[in-house]
Amino acid sequence: MPAALPPTRPALRARYDRRQQEVVATAARLFAERGYQATSMQDLTEATGLAAGGLYHYIGSKEQLLIRICDELLEPLLEQAREIVAREAPATEHLHELLRAWLAHIATHREHMAVFAQERHAIEREPQWREVRRQRKAFEKILDDVLARGEQDGEMQFADRGLTLLALLGMVNHTATWLRPRGRLSPEQIADGYCDLILKAGAPA
Amino acid sequence: MPAALPPTRPALRARYDRRQQEVVATAARLFAERGYQATSMQDLTEATGLAAGGLYHYIGSKEQLLIRICDELLEPLLEQAREIVAREAPATEHLHELLRAWLAHIATHREHMAVFAQERHAIEREPQWREVRRQRKAFEKILDDVLARGEQDGEMQFADRGLTLLALLGMVNHTATWLRPRGRLSPEQIADGYCDLILKAGAPA
Repeated sequence: MPAALPPTRPALRARYDRRQQEVVATAARLFAERGYQATSMQDLTEATGLAAGGLYHYIGSKEQLLIRICDELLEPLLEQAREIVAREAPATEHLHELLRAWLAHIATHREHMAVFAQERHAIEREPQWREVRRQRKAFEKILDDVLARGEQDGEMQFADRGLTLLALLGMVNHTATWLRPRGRLSPEQIADGYCDLILKAGAPA
Repeated sequence: MPAALPPTRPALRARYDRRQQEVVATAARLFAERGYQATSMQDLTEATGLAAGGLYHYIGSKEQLLIRICDELLEPLLEQAREIVAREAPATEHLHELLRAWLAHIATHREHMAVFAQERHAIEREPQWREVRRQRKAFEKILDDVLARGEQDGEMQFADRGLTLLALLGMVNHTATWLRPRGRLSPEQIADGYCDLILKAGAPA
């Protein structure tokens, strides 16, 4: 069942959007803690304080919630990445900025990341996740283009650019499993550390 | 309900062990494809060809299956890692060997890895997973000790050893999501590529 259409009057619409966002945040926390599959609609109504009808009104179904969680994870990041590479700058600067934006986003979406990792097997496979896959691939393409340009311009060197990109995706995504709000390193320091790791690795000795 | 005690006569015991291993492999495949939570005991009886009673006989419960999957992932790897570092050799050689063993193990346990990633939220949190967490930490400690020894002996240099270890864990574990049996790079080439990435990054320019 799809969610109800949002109201059209601006004040009502703002309240609706805010409430919907709260529901998605609560769901992300529950799914991250208990597992997406193991969380029931009843768990969700209890945690959100909405009746079942209210939950259907804002969201529609548990799968719709999961789609919202993935969208909140990927859409703003992809938008930011496009803005970064649209500005004229050397590839190295783009890479630094992309990593900082990415790590900052992960730091505020650790629960979203945990849910994505849990349901990756379905997201990579099933037709209803095509749009989420497309967004993930578009983001990876932006990163790869920056590395390719860095190589072309002689700013970066990689023994194997494809493997470097995969290593980068791995180290950044894994960060969500250990990053803590007041940890030893800030998201910015982590981003710069990863950047140095892949840039220095290719530098001539 | 715990599984039945295995038979004591050697020939029967071997058959029992083989059958049990097949059941675990089938479960790992199903869980990786459909999700651990979404797979029912009925799915498992259908896929293994065992009746429900037979499944209980070999395994006991779905959670017992998950524990077996984690054990098959971590126990042999930890044992191999201990053998590698017990041999006298420079830290750089130990690191190469550890990464090769680790990547080779991942290549043959991609489904196990997918299940581990799915259920990580429970494994990191719930008391019945303490032993799995202990094994994971023991393996990470071996890696960290090798990096620390490499630093002490002047063979390796890291801007931040802790972050390098976390980056390494991330890139290697993520490999399970993209590695394909006849892919462009062999597990050995990937291991050596990762090794170069973290070793060259710290090398003086």
